[in-house]
Amino acid sequence: MKILLLHSDYIEYEVKKKTKFAEPFDGKGERVNEALVVFVSVEKGDSEDTALKAVEEIRDVAGKVNAERIVLYPYAHLSSNLADPETAVKLLKFMEKELSSDFEVHRSPFGWYKAFKISCKGHPLSELSREIKGEDIEVTQALK
Amino acid sequence: MKILLLHSDYIEYEVKKKTKFAEPFDGKGERVNEALVVFVSVEKGDSEDTALKAVEEIRDVAGKVNAERIVLYPYAHLSSNLADPETAVKLLKFMEKELSSDFEVHRSPFGWYKAFKISCKGHPLSELSREIKGEDIEVTQALK
Ligand SMILES: [Mg+2]
Ligand SMILES: [Mg+2]
Repeated sequence: MKILLLHSDYIEYEVKKKTKFAEPFDGKGERVNEALVVFVSVEKGDSEDTALKAVEEIRDVAGKVNAERIVLYPYAHLSSNLADPETAVKLLKFMEKELSSDFEVHRSPFGWYKAFKISCKGHPLSELSREIKGEDIEVTQALK
Repeated sequence: MKILLLHSDYIEYEVKKKTKFAEPFDGKGERVNEALVVFVSVEKGDSEDTALKAVEEIRDVAGKVNAERIVLYPYAHLSSNLADPETAVKLLKFMEKELSSDFEVHRSPFGWYKAFKISCKGHPLSELSREIKGEDIEVTQALK
């Protein structure tokens, strides 16, 4: 699993068009202010265990930047080794549920073309990425 | 080299803080409207040859979405195998120069923490990614 975490003034998205993997979604989109936006690529081999490790990373960063709202945003472009869509949606829902005990969690729908606007704050912790593998969490090179 | 191409209504950025790899930059930032924004991770082993292949990909996408303005935005979070900063800056400048024959090209400075706002259009070609290796261009799985 790869995640990119952007501490943001806001994110706003609007669904535009389904792909063949679109999960059912009735809304048009939403705007969330003052959020930690987490772009997520679920990868082949990821399990609930991987997802739990990602949740711990998200909790950690949210604590450091003082974010009360999390937006989980499925993002295929962080990996060239993506999980199948069923697994991706299952793990995204699992992460949503896990994080919901401590945060206001929003999740954008999987498998839709979406327009989006985001405003990233720009402080040193406002853009972080993590690669989470079975047993390891790899801090990407940019952060070493 | 990994690139993420977002066809955008606008991007706006403001430099916030230097890292130890910051390239000299006197400005505060800028706003570019109606642009193909290209987030770039230069990777170990990338050469001018790799950069030229990336330029061809960028030209191709810009043609398809009818973009006249390109923003090259260095982005460390697309790879965990980054080139050294000197090589990265050298290849980004090379790409800027190559693209300048056909486009209005903007390049945001390397090695700065930056706040940014972006508005991605959301049509099917408005978010694409490419992985460019020596001889190959890998279309990321999301696009297959
Ligand atoms: Mg603010
Ligand atoms: Mg527009």
